[in-house]
Amino acid sequence: MKLDRNFPATSNGGEREVEVEEEEQGFKTIEVASVTDNPHNRHRQLDHINNCCGGGDLSSESPAPSPVVDELSFIPPLNFAMVDNGIFRSGFPDSANFSFVETLGLRSIICLCPEPYPEANTEFLKANGIRLFQFGIEGYKEPFVNIPEDTIREALQVVLDVKNHPLLIHCKRGKHRTGCVVGCLRKLQKWCLSSIFDEYQRFAAAKARVSDQRFMELFDVSTLKHIPLSFSCSRR
Amino acid sequence: MKLDRNFPATSNGGEREVEVEEEEQGFKTIEVASVTDNPHNRHRQLDHINNCCGGGDLSSESPAPSPVVDELSFIPPLNFAMVDNGIFRSGFPDSANFSFVETLGLRSIICLCPEPYPEANTEFLKANGIRLFQFGIEGYKEPFVNIPEDTIREALQVVLDVKNHPLLIHCKRGKHRTGCVVGCLRKLQKWCLSSIFDEYQRFAAAKARVSDQRFMELFDVSTLKHIPLSFSCSRR
Repeated sequence: MKLDRNFPATSNGGEREVEVEEEEQGFKTIEVASVTDNPHNRHRQLDHINNCCGGGDLSSESPAPSPVVDELSFIPPLNFAMVDNGIFRSGFPDSANFSFVETLGLRSIICLCPEPYPEANTEFLKANGIRLFQFGIEGYKEPFVNIPEDTIREALQVVLDVKNHPLLIHCKRGKHRTGCVVGCLRKLQKWCLSSIFDEYQRFAAAKARVSDQRFMELFDVSTLKHIPLSFSCSRR
Repeated sequence: MKLDRNFPATSNGGEREVEVEEEEQGFKTIEVASVTDNPHNRHRQLDHINNCCGGGDLSSESPAPSPVVDELSFIPPLNFAMVDNGIFRSGFPDSANFSFVETLGLRSIICLCPEPYPEANTEFLKANGIRLFQFGIEGYKEPFVNIPEDTIREALQVVLDVKNHPLLIHCKRGKHRTGCVVGCLRKLQKWCLSSIFDEYQRFAAAKARVSDQRFMELFDVSTLKHIPLSFSCSRR
């Protein structure tokens, strides 16, 4: 019953062609948890958000408050998960995911893809006062994977700065690049390697790469500021 | 590179024999992320915990503070993850996981297994002032799965009560019973079914069950108190 769909990217602003991990039939694909951005459904979602949050700029877009609010559903981005307090991870958020992402109250997004950020996403960020940190890492395939350590380190510094929280880390599918950043964070949190790899594999599944895992194993956290991060906000 | 090891349960207090999901060669197995509870390593871990938390009851057990603190590693329970603010999920925590679990500062644990709680775990709970809620659900195999809706509902009520947070939900492997409780919570948070199933499958992997997913699909959340739970504490 695994849902695994590929769809052509809509507004990927893709002027710059790079090696795409899963290029099929000549068009780029972005996996999303759901695809149809049904305008009717979208209105209902926005309506609900406005009802919940006391209205906003978008309320004029939903003139017909319907009694079906209970039927609405949020669509988290592909591979969405909570990493720690104020830190989330996912694949590339699509417009269908925006109403869900709004509920996270994000202050920042770290995008690990090198392509120009899609216009729809840029507008969403602007409308919600979310700062974008882009660390472009190419999406190579094994055995030509070359994870730039310095870039991962810079991304990690942004993740560690609580002033940037709540924060969402995403790449395209939320598997490899995001998995490496989260894995290095776990290393800083002193998780044993087998647990770090287990978490990585939960998201990468059949696409898990030994090279990513070797990168995490060799990544030196000794020069990073050791903030006591491990779920500390959960302390009673 | 997937680590998938089975080991005989140590202190499972298993007076009552029930159907065990994966009984091999006549002994019960509990999967854990790591197995060797090396006393030397354990002392180093406790030492680190004491160093971090300003000492405690256990400090007398680690008389030789070593300079190798940086080498210690925490061992999260199998399938450990953060579900939402103050809510965690995992497989059965083993004594090797206790020093990690301590860092969560838990107030409660929900155990979804019917067997008597192991003595070592009970002692750990007592030492850390953690309240145990046990909702015994048998670990059936398909096609004889019968998930008791009332029990899941009761467990969910405990999960929803923030007075019980931080809270860890666990069963044996953190796949099916835990997956159902988390899935019903997601339904309450208005996640679309495909995303609920995707999260369920990330943990259940090859063991994913259609019957569990049908249970989540049919589960009626309308009678539950609709607390605005969705990552709300993350709001800036």
